[in-house]
Amino acid sequence: MSEFDLIDHAFRAKLPFKHSLTTISGGDDASVHSVPDGYELVVSTDMSLAGVHWPHNFPLEHAACRAVNAALSDLAAMGAQACWVWVCAALCDAAAAEMMGDGIATALNESGIELAGGDTVKAKDNSLAVTVAGVLPKGTAMRRDAAQDGDDIWLCGELGFAAQALRQWQQGDSCAQTMQAFSYVQPRLAEGIVLRQGGVRCCIDVSDGLLADSEHLAEASGVGMEIELSLIPSFKHLEQLLGKDDAANLVLTGGEDYALVCTAPVALRDTLLPLAVRIGRCRSGKGVRAMLDGLELNITQRGFDHFA
Amino acid sequence: MSEFDLIDHAFRAKLPFKHSLTTISGGDDASVHSVPDGYELVVSTDMSLAGVHWPHNFPLEHAACRAVNAALSDLAAMGAQACWVWVCAALCDAAAAEMMGDGIATALNESGIELAGGDTVKAKDNSLAVTVAGVLPKGTAMRRDAAQDGDDIWLCGELGFAAQALRQWQQGDSCAQTMQAFSYVQPRLAEGIVLRQGGVRCCIDVSDGLLADSEHLAEASGVGMEIELSLIPSFKHLEQLLGKDDAANLVLTGGEDYALVCTAPVALRDTLLPLAVRIGRCRSGKGVRAMLDGLELNITQRGFDHFA
Repeated sequence: MSEFDLIDHAFRAKLPFKHSLTTISGGDDASVHSVPDGYELVVSTDMSLAGVHWPHNFPLEHAACRAVNAALSDLAAMGAQACWVWVCAALCDAAAAEMMGDGIATALNESGIELAGGDTVKAKDNSLAVTVAGVLPKGTAMRRDAAQDGDDIWLCGELGFAAQALRQWQQGDSCAQTMQAFSYVQPRLAEGIVLRQGGVRCCIDVSDGLLADSEHLAEASGVGMEIELSLIPSFKHLEQLLGKDDAANLVLTGGEDYALVCTAPVALRDTLLPLAVRIGRCRSGKGVRAMLDGLELNITQRGFDHFA
Repeated sequence: MSEFDLIDHAFRAKLPFKHSLTTISGGDDASVHSVPDGYELVVSTDMSLAGVHWPHNFPLEHAACRAVNAALSDLAAMGAQACWVWVCAALCDAAAAEMMGDGIATALNESGIELAGGDTVKAKDNSLAVTVAGVLPKGTAMRRDAAQDGDDIWLCGELGFAAQALRQWQQGDSCAQTMQAFSYVQPRLAEGIVLRQGGVRCCIDVSDGLLADSEHLAEASGVGMEIELSLIPSFKHLEQLLGKDDAANLVLTGGEDYALVCTAPVALRDTLLPLAVRIGRCRSGKGVRAMLDGLELNITQRGFDHFA
């Protein structure tokens, strides 16, 4: 099968959806899209590699599905309406292409998001680079640099479960439930849009760990942040299973649950309460402090870092 | 150095240009961009891998520069004004990141194109996935499926030189001139815009070889194509160096010169003459025929194919 036939068979045939804003896609030199008047384009790109982002023996469909959903999570954090995905796939063989196509289809089917283009290359390790794009009304993107002293800190989603599942997998537990818990990423696109529409202007998604990503937000915004662990529902759950220290470590530094963390003025509390859990407060100063029942915790490892 | 510092140092610091249509870039979850009213967005993505798209011992700066320019060539083929690039880089080490950053900077500096985002991951082999985007007036993109029976076929750029240089490199000739000839890709962005503005509606860039890419165009448009080799300037040059057969092979199947091939009605001849060379004619029927002085050539290998 030629490269062109392979792309048709493994990818395009499984992903026939075409977005209403698309003019040209699937097989031209580039894809062409409309952005409605008064809207802006939002773009993000993520690289995922076997042996780094998922274990080598992990099913490639699950890994690919996870990679696409993780990339879409960046659009959720901006409050964008996701429209298009482009995938560059490095593949060991044609069977890997089929599995990757299946995983991408699982992520995108019935999502209203189009696979608008891509490229494949034969390689020793399977990997995929996913570019995602969406639209939002001009000037409304939720940024990292918009937190203010006095803002509440809100959490939309869970923390620590993906890291726990990955650890179980690495310890030899390959049951379906564990695999599902690690591979299942729900990009919080609908929640991101509702947060943006509700007036939230500062948000980040948690991919590297709550502390690491909150620090990005605190640094970009020039504020300090104080997070109370006992207010995070998954901490209570993991504490019962694993004890306080381990649960704190998983919730604060375990990445890849793709929860959204946002900040908002106190006046937005009523709007946000049905959507998110209030987990702390922005303060003047710098850095992120993690508290448990009012006492500061000392956490050293601040998240995952490929080149450390 | 952490991943975040590395990205700053190896990439962002070398690529400070921010496009006037960019609202947010560099370090948020995603980048945000305006698309002017009445314009469309054009996007393409390409994967390039050491050992496949460039020899392992090839300087990574040159390889990265080449990869970015090759991706931009897809925007040229649509007639788009290039605005933004996003790079996903798999890198062996921090030194590779510096070299890749240097190469991307060489490609983009003084081009008016912004590095709007990206991602890095540590890997065994160096590779990069490049996503490029630009804009053009609504409904004016040059497509593959718009060739008509009777159209002239035009070539803008050279053919065969990159394949010849790669062969010389593989035979041990590592002189600067050979390296330059292989690594130097000039994306024909200005020419693409002028072709589009001149009324051309059908274009492709030659990355896989003239025959293979012309066949994509012929198939998408439902026409046959007849190309006369003696009309291609680089054929004459290579014929003197290498003889007729080898020159025909390089010009027809050697990929990666990134020339533009377009078709246009006879009425556009005066417009196109200063920009391009007329190399053939579209006919009713199917497939691409390569002629030399009016006699049909029989070429079997139709271009490069990763999974063949």
